[in-house]
Amino acid sequence: MAEDKKYETLDPENWDDMRILAHQMVDDSIDYLKSAGERPVWQRVPDDVASTFQAGMPEEPSAPSRVYEEFRDHVFPYSLGCPHPRFWGWYMGNGTILGALADFMAATMNSNLGGGHHAAIMVEQQVINWMKSVVGFPEKASGLLVSGGSMANITGLTVARNSMVDWDVRKEGVRANRKKLTIYASTEAHSCNQKGVEQLGLGSDNLRRIPVREDYTMDLEQLQAAIEADRRDGCRAICVIASSGTVNTGAIDDLNGIADICKKHQLWFHIDGAIGAIAMLSEQVKPRLKGIERADSIALDLHKWLHIPFEAACILVKEESFHRGSFSLVPAYLEQDGGGIASGGHWFSEYGLQLSRSFRALKVWMTLKEHGSRRLGRMISRNVEQAHYLGGLIESSNDLELVAPIGLDIVCFRFNPGGMDPQSLNRVNRRILVELQENGIAAPSFTTLKGTYCIRVAIANHRSRYEDFDLLVHETVRIGKSV
Amino acid sequence: MAEDKKYETLDPENWDDMRILAHQMVDDSIDYLKSAGERPVWQRVPDDVASTFQAGMPEEPSAPSRVYEEFRDHVFPYSLGCPHPRFWGWYMGNGTILGALADFMAATMNSNLGGGHHAAIMVEQQVINWMKSVVGFPEKASGLLVSGGSMANITGLTVARNSMVDWDVRKEGVRANRKKLTIYASTEAHSCNQKGVEQLGLGSDNLRRIPVREDYTMDLEQLQAAIEADRRDGCRAICVIASSGTVNTGAIDDLNGIADICKKHQLWFHIDGAIGAIAMLSEQVKPRLKGIERADSIALDLHKWLHIPFEAACILVKEESFHRGSFSLVPAYLEQDGGGIASGGHWFSEYGLQLSRSFRALKVWMTLKEHGSRRLGRMISRNVEQAHYLGGLIESSNDLELVAPIGLDIVCFRFNPGGMDPQSLNRVNRRILVELQENGIAAPSFTTLKGTYCIRVAIANHRSRYEDFDLLVHETVRIGKSV
Repeated sequence: MAEDKKYETLDPENWDDMRILAHQMVDDSIDYLKSAGERPVWQRVPDDVASTFQAGMPEEPSAPSRVYEEFRDHVFPYSLGCPHPRFWGWYMGNGTILGALADFMAATMNSNLGGGHHAAIMVEQQVINWMKSVVGFPEKASGLLVSGGSMANITGLTVARNSMVDWDVRKEGVRANRKKLTIYASTEAHSCNQKGVEQLGLGSDNLRRIPVREDYTMDLEQLQAAIEADRRDGCRAICVIASSGTVNTGAIDDLNGIADICKKHQLWFHIDGAIGAIAMLSEQVKPRLKGIERADSIALDLHKWLHIPFEAACILVKEESFHRGSFSLVPAYLEQDGGGIASGGHWFSEYGLQLSRSFRALKVWMTLKEHGSRRLGRMISRNVEQAHYLGGLIESSNDLELVAPIGLDIVCFRFNPGGMDPQSLNRVNRRILVELQENGIAAPSFTTLKGTYCIRVAIANHRSRYEDFDLLVHETVRIGKSV
Repeated sequence: MAEDKKYETLDPENWDDMRILAHQMVDDSIDYLKSAGERPVWQRVPDDVASTFQAGMPEEPSAPSRVYEEFRDHVFPYSLGCPHPRFWGWYMGNGTILGALADFMAATMNSNLGGGHHAAIMVEQQVINWMKSVVGFPEKASGLLVSGGSMANITGLTVARNSMVDWDVRKEGVRANRKKLTIYASTEAHSCNQKGVEQLGLGSDNLRRIPVREDYTMDLEQLQAAIEADRRDGCRAICVIASSGTVNTGAIDDLNGIADICKKHQLWFHIDGAIGAIAMLSEQVKPRLKGIERADSIALDLHKWLHIPFEAACILVKEESFHRGSFSLVPAYLEQDGGGIASGGHWFSEYGLQLSRSFRALKVWMTLKEHGSRRLGRMISRNVEQAHYLGGLIESSNDLELVAPIGLDIVCFRFNPGGMDPQSLNRVNRRILVELQENGIAAPSFTTLKGTYCIRVAIANHRSRYEDFDLLVHETVRIGKSV
C-alpha cells in the first residue's frame, strides 16, 4: 500500500465542509416537506435530465457538495409525489420528517438487526410487541419487521406451508407424490399473495381464487364449497388468506366467518392486512375488523397508513415455534454465545429470510412515540371520513358515478355524463386521469372493475384536506367536459 | 370529524422547533462518526436501560425533542459497533456519513420504486448498469436492488428454478412426479442459499453440499461426480451455486472451472458474490475472480465491502427475459399507461418479490459519485493487505496460529501457546473473544472449522489502520496468558 494512501478512508476529507452540507440538506428537506402541497403533485422528468442517468460509473471522486447538487437538481424535483396532499395513487403513505430523520440516525449507527446484544434489537422487539397489542395477539406471539406487505405475506405463507403438512417441507420440499397443497384467497386478494404461492413452489393453480360478493368481499359459501371439493379430490387444503382491506376497493373480508371455516377444516388463517390491519388504531374502523385476533398470522404494512417512510412492514405469527421452525438455521459462524456481542438471546434472522437487517424499527418507534396511537388512529379515521365525503360529492354530481362501494379509504369512480358507450367512457376517464397527473393537480391511480375503467382514489394521506377533494371533483368534471 | 382536528396532520406543530432538532441530530451524527474509533467498540446495554424497552405502546404524543433524547440516551450509545475501526464481526461494512444522509433524503422524498415515471427509477437503473459493468455483464442484462445478500441469492435461485425446467413452475409448482430438482453448492456456501432452496419448495435434501479442498474451495471433481450420480438416479440437476468469498474464510471457488461444468451439463451458474463480487473494483483481487462474467446470475452485497449503510444488495441476471418471466405479475391496478405517473416503461416490481420498494439506490449512487470506483477499490485492496499483515503478525507469534488459509479479507486464528488439549483451547479462545468484546477493545466474531473454535477477523472496514491489528494481536496474547 502506497504510504500516502495508508490512512485514506471513506470519511470526509474535511468534516467541517460535510457538516455545512449536512445542515443544508436538513434545511432543504424541511422546506420540501413544509411546502409539500405547494408544488405540482407530479411532473415528468425532462429529457435532458433523464439523459444524465445514462452516464457510466464514476472512477474518480467528486466533492460531496457537487454530488448533492446533482441530486438536488436532477432527482429531488422529479419525485413520485407521495408527500403531496393530493397523492392518492396505488396505496402509499406520506412519510414524516421525524421518520426520515430516524432513518438517518439508523444509517449513522449502521446497526445490523440480524441478532446480537444491542439496543436496536430491543427497540424492534418493543415495536413488535406494540403491533401484537394493536391486533390483539398474545404476548407470546412472535413477529418480524420486514420490507413491505409482499415480504410480510410471503413470510406468513411460508410458515403456513411449513407448519400445516405432515412431512418436513424444509428438508424434503413440496412433494406432489403426497397430497396437492391448496390455498384459498378471494379474486380481489393482492397479487403478492400469488407471487408468494409461486415462490413457495406450490403453483398458482393451487391458489384457489374464490369469487367475491357485490361488496367485493369473499363469498364464504363458495370458499366452503371449494375446500370441500378439493378434499374430495384428494388435495390437502392448508391455508385461507383473508384480506382486511382489498387493494382495489378496500373491502374487508368477513374475518370471523373465515376464522370459523378455518377452525372447522383445520386450516391456517392468514390475514393480508397490508392496508387495513393498522386501522385497528381507529375507533371507527376497529369494529369492522372483528375476528382479526383469531388469525394464525397477520401481515401489517407500516409504510402505508402509518406513514412510516419506505420500507416498513410487520409479520406476526401467533405460535412462535411455528415461526422460528420455518426459518431458523444457525451455522457455526452465527452461533450465539453466553457473553459479548453474540449474546442477547433473540436472533431475528431465525424468523425470516434476511440475515443482515437494517434498523427500520427506529422510524416506527420514533413515530409512535411522537404521535401516539390515538393521533395516528385519528388520521386513519379522517381518511375514511374523507372517502365518504368524496363519495358524497360524486353522488351529488350529475357527471360522476361511483363504480364500487367505498371500502375503508378507497373510492373508485368515473366521469359519466350519460349517453356514452362503455369504450368511450373508458377512454375518456383514462384521459382525465392522465390530465390530472400531467397537470400536477392530483395523483389518483386507476383500476378496472368488471371491465369498467375507473379512477381510484386511495386516501392514506395525513395531509389531505376536505378541500382537496372538492378540487378533485371540480377538475375531473372540467377535464371530462373538455375532452 | 371534530372541527379542531379537521386540519391536524403528522407534520410538526412547530417547524422551527423541528428544524432546530434536526440540526442537533446532524451534529450528533457527525460527532459520532468522526469519533468512531474513540469509543469502546461495543458495550452491554445496562439493565435499567433495557427495561425501558418493555413499555407498552404510547397512546399520547410526545415532543419530538423528548423522543430524540430517549433515543440519544438509550439507543445511540449501545450499538452493535459497525462504524468502529476495530469492528470485524460476521461480515459488515462501516457505512459513511453521506450514505446516511442519502437515506435521509430518500426518506424525505418517500419514493416508491415499484415503478412509474420518476427520477428515482432512473437512478436505480443507472446503479444497476454500473453493477453490470463491475462484473462484466452485458448491457442487456437485468438487475434489481434488494435488501441484502439473502434476498439477492433467493431472487437468483428463483430465476434458476423457474427457467431451468420444462414446465411452468409458477403455475404448477414444484412437482416431484416429474424429476427431482437438484442444486449444488459447497459445504462452505452461505446458509442463506439453503434457506432459499427451502423457501422455493425444493427441499434442503436436494441441495447437494459438495466437499471443499484444503483451501476451502469447492472440489470440482466431486461436483462433477455428484451431478453425474444424480443424473443416473433420475434427478434433474438445475443449478450450481459458486461462492466468490465464503463466509467462514473468504475462499473463492474456481469460477471458470464451475462455468465449464455448468456449460457441459447445461446448468444455471449462480454466484453468491455477497462478499467478494464487489472486489472486482480492486485491481489486486480482480484477477482471482476470473470467470465471474460467465455466470447466469450474480448476487452482490453493497452494505458489506462497499460500505453502503444497511440495507443494500443487488441481483444481476444475464438473460432479462428469464428474470422478468420469474416475477412479472401485473394486476389491473398496476397496469402501465402511456401518460402520467404510471408511464415510464420499467417496473422493478416485475423483477422481484417486492412491490413497494424504497429508494435505496440513492445511497449507492451518491457513494459511488462521492468516492469513485478507484478509491472504493483501494479500500478493498487495503483490507486484503491488512488481512495478510495480520496473518504475518500471527505467524511470527509463538502464541498464535492461523487455523485456515487467509481468503480475501478474512483471518481465522487462535491463541495456542502449546501444551493445551483441544477442548481447553476452544474454551480459552472463546474466553479471549468475549473479553475482547466486553472490554470494548475489538469485535471479531468466531467460527468453528473442522471442530476447531477460532477467532474470525473479517476486515471489511475502511477505518481500520494497521496499528489496529497490532493492538488485536497484543491484546489477544495478553488476555490468553491471563485466563
